[in-house]
Amino acid sequence: MKWLTEEEQATWRAFLDATTLLEDHLDRQLQRDAGIPHMYYALLSTLSETPDRQLRMTELAERTKITRSRLSHAVARLEGNGWLRRESCASDRRGQVCVLTDAGYEELVRTAPGHVTAVRTAIFDRLTPEQTAALGQISRIIADGLHEPHGSDVPWLR
Amino acid sequence: MKWLTEEEQATWRAFLDATTLLEDHLDRQLQRDAGIPHMYYALLSTLSETPDRQLRMTELAERTKITRSRLSHAVARLEGNGWLRRESCASDRRGQVCVLTDAGYEELVRTAPGHVTAVRTAIFDRLTPEQTAALGQISRIIADGLHEPHGSDVPWLR
Repeated sequence: MKWLTEEEQATWRAFLDATTLLEDHLDRQLQRDAGIPHMYYALLSTLSETPDRQLRMTELAERTKITRSRLSHAVARLEGNGWLRRESCASDRRGQVCVLTDAGYEELVRTAPGHVTAVRTAIFDRLTPEQTAALGQISRIIADGLHEPHGSDVPWLR
Repeated sequence: MKWLTEEEQATWRAFLDATTLLEDHLDRQLQRDAGIPHMYYALLSTLSETPDRQLRMTELAERTKITRSRLSHAVARLEGNGWLRRESCASDRRGQVCVLTDAGYEELVRTAPGHVTAVRTAIFDRLTPEQTAALGQISRIIADGLHEPHGSDVPWLR
């Protein structure tokens, strides 16, 4: 095996610092403004971007890169808030569809400006256009790589 | 407020995908090989890099960017494994020092090759030297930015 070089180690440490602090920062911001963690917000936001504000549970898990059990837990919580609703799937009796309710959509409209400002202030206001492009490219390389070796071990198929 | 541009949105989504998949991948790898999540491994690794394999609890929380309550919980678990030990601090009666035990060091020596290989395979083997340098630079910008506005709201002072 090959250890990390000094530069790789420094990059890895900086990346862990940045992602740990960012997760903490966005979770705090959303807990304060909407009473939910960042991952729950991502579910509402992902649903809002679809044409009819709904997705099959398996598709929602894949788009947000989480396990089905983690998704079920989050959806149950957000159903309790009245922001989501589960329905049985018309085309597949075993499948379930997750629907963003009007109340959920309104909550998203209410909290999106504060959340986008937090993301912009923490990341995009600090980066040059070249750095933003590089971060996107590097992130896609890492994300694509983690789809392959996993095979059926990707979170949403567990 | 200003919404994200299309490129910023695409970058943000790719970054979330990459960090969510990476966290899942490294947690799975370490749970399988050492029975602990990635954050616990980071505590052992951080202690191992100090001259006498020990740090004050507050310093360990700051270096790993987590809250003191999250640290206490993790340290209690790792004490149960015999990998860490808490001692009262010689210079400050209220302070506590966290010490990596010999068993903890041996566990780290045993699991480090597999973990470093997982990190290398997921990230550094896929990036050019320029991309590695850019990722380090961008991560430092984001991490530095999240130290400032927080003030005393940084995780380790809560």
